[in-house]
Amino acid sequence: MPDAVPDPPALLTPETARRYGVEGAWRIGIEAAVRWSEVDAFGHANHRAFLEWYENARNRYLEAVGLPRLTFTTPGPVLGHVEARYLKPLHFGDPFLTTARVRSIKRTSFTMDYAVWRDGCCALGSAFCVLMVAATGEKVPVPEPVRAAMIAFDQPEIL
Amino acid sequence: MPDAVPDPPALLTPETARRYGVEGAWRIGIEAAVRWSEVDAFGHANHRAFLEWYENARNRYLEAVGLPRLTFTTPGPVLGHVEARYLKPLHFGDPFLTTARVRSIKRTSFTMDYAVWRDGCCALGSAFCVLMVAATGEKVPVPEPVRAAMIAFDQPEIL
Amino acid sequence: MPDAVPDPPALLTPETARRYGVEGAWRIGIEAAVRWSEVDAFGHANHRAFLEWYENARNRYLEAVGLPRLTFTTPGPVLGHVEARYLKPLHFGDPFLTTARVRSIKRTSFTMDYAVWRDGCCALGSAFCVLMVAATGEKVPVPEPVRAAMIAFDQPEIL
Amino acid sequence: MPDAVPDPPALLTPETARRYGVEGAWRIGIEAAVRWSEVDAFGHANHRAFLEWYENARNRYLEAVGLPRLTFTTPGPVLGHVEARYLKPLHFGDPFLTTARVRSIKRTSFTMDYAVWRDGCCALGSAFCVLMVAATGEKVPVPEPVRAAMIAFDQPEIL
Repeated sequence: MPDAVPDPPALLTPETARRYGVEGAWRIGIEAAVRWSEVDAFGHANHRAFLEWYENARNRYLEAVGLPRLTFTTPGPVLGHVEARYLKPLHFGDPFLTTARVRSIKRTSFTMDYAVWRDGCCALGSAFCVLMVAATGEKVPVPEPVRAAMIAFDQPEIL
Repeated sequence: MPDAVPDPPALLTPETARRYGVEGAWRIGIEAAVRWSEVDAFGHANHRAFLEWYENARNRYLEAVGLPRLTFTTPGPVLGHVEARYLKPLHFGDPFLTTARVRSIKRTSFTMDYAVWRDGCCALGSAFCVLMVAATGEKVPVPEPVRAAMIAFDQPEIL
Repeated sequence: MPDAVPDPPALLTPETARRYGVEGAWRIGIEAAVRWSEVDAFGHANHRAFLEWYENARNRYLEAVGLPRLTFTTPGPVLGHVEARYLKPLHFGDPFLTTARVRSIKRTSFTMDYAVWRDGCCALGSAFCVLMVAATGEKVPVPEPVRAAMIAFDQPEIL
Repeated sequence: MPDAVPDPPALLTPETARRYGVEGAWRIGIEAAVRWSEVDAFGHANHRAFLEWYENARNRYLEAVGLPRLTFTTPGPVLGHVEARYLKPLHFGDPFLTTARVRSIKRTSFTMDYAVWRDGCCALGSAFCVLMVAATGEKVPVPEPVRAAMIAFDQPEIL
């Protein structure tokens, strides 16, 4: 099964995982540095920046498991619930890694976990996503190859 | 005690509450309309926009209970945890109301609840906030008058 | 002609203009206060925040002159050029006014000027906008009633 | 002189320049892909996203010429004027390159040019920046080594 899985730069290597102090099993990891626009007047990356990093990691993950690039007329993840926990602040220019994995799948929805890493874990997050076509508002089943690739990546719970 | 409480435009009136279909007890409510920059390519207010509305409502609430305006060198809320639940989408230009209240207080932290309303509830949220001085990174106790005003507003649980 | 013009809260009154130290002829003005998310680690409203205020004022102006609310399938302003000049910084919580007017009109495009006011002028801006339907990418003429209302508001140059 | 110049990943190679259809002399170029949060309901990268790309390229450039990482208490670029011209739209996920160079220098200020590339030029921009310490509001001269590195990079006009 893993050989059916695409191999974008988003795939996390053991060296990269080590460099950021990643713990646990994560297949997808995106490197970035904190941008000026993400830092607020307290001098830290604002709490909303992490949600955007989770969004980016989610979209890269979905691309990696074969979901066509998001558009107004094709299926995309609509959030039903989102959560973030902040452990260590990040400052302008700090390099960090955002990891993503699927925790559970249902017919038309899935739950992902996220984490941000720099010398260990800086933040955790999760999102419950329903797959919908924005133009029509209709829920759609997770396409079979996407579902298979998610299972191959992360062995999520099947609900 | 309530007469010690400031009275900014952020104070929610019964008429405004009715107009947006607000349920439950909320003292602070901020009206706005969805801005173009908050709408993504799915044509809805993005999930992160709600977090900013909660942030705005939090800051207006804190001002209403007497916390001096946030700066780098004075106490401000640093988020330890944030959560949002999305019930109904909002579109460009939709008017909405964001409400905020304090659910519980500890010595140096508090938990707030938020909701977004338009013909009833569109989204819920919460944030666990630690009061810190950004310049030094030190936690500070919730000032006594702020604490008293929070209690007068919302009768939070004292932890 | 002016009585054909809609009258939203965005219409600037002489008292409001005086309160912010507005100079010159502006028909549309939007009041707001600097939000936490707009302030960067230098402690000022970031230069991009002003561009969003111009965007909001542009959209309110277009609504005031009768353009239907922007969607993916109806005509909206696509920017060809934008410019901003910064005169005085704004800080978290500062109330300010954003004004907008049309400087010139062509068949499918127009140029607007903007300004931000607080105790006089804090910033200036302009945008060259082409009216397009995003879904098809086609340019469309400025609808006759919109054009007439723009002319009634601001006596723009006709190019 | 070029050997005194730092060599971050931001340095543009001829292969990268060719890949994006870059024209003209640019020493600094940052690769990225359009993020979901940058795309508006018209389905393009919003006009403000380009301003953030210019901001990122500016900050990477300043780091490359030796300016210490921006903080509240050290010299940083405060914008006096900014401009952008949009030639071709970019869509979600599109890879692009942002280039930056210094056009002219004065004692405490400089003007930079920017461009965004993907199969040729998609957008142009410029910014007039004053070097200031945010904490005190005072203008500071461009440090001699930074000035020398800017001259070595881009042979700007000396005003």
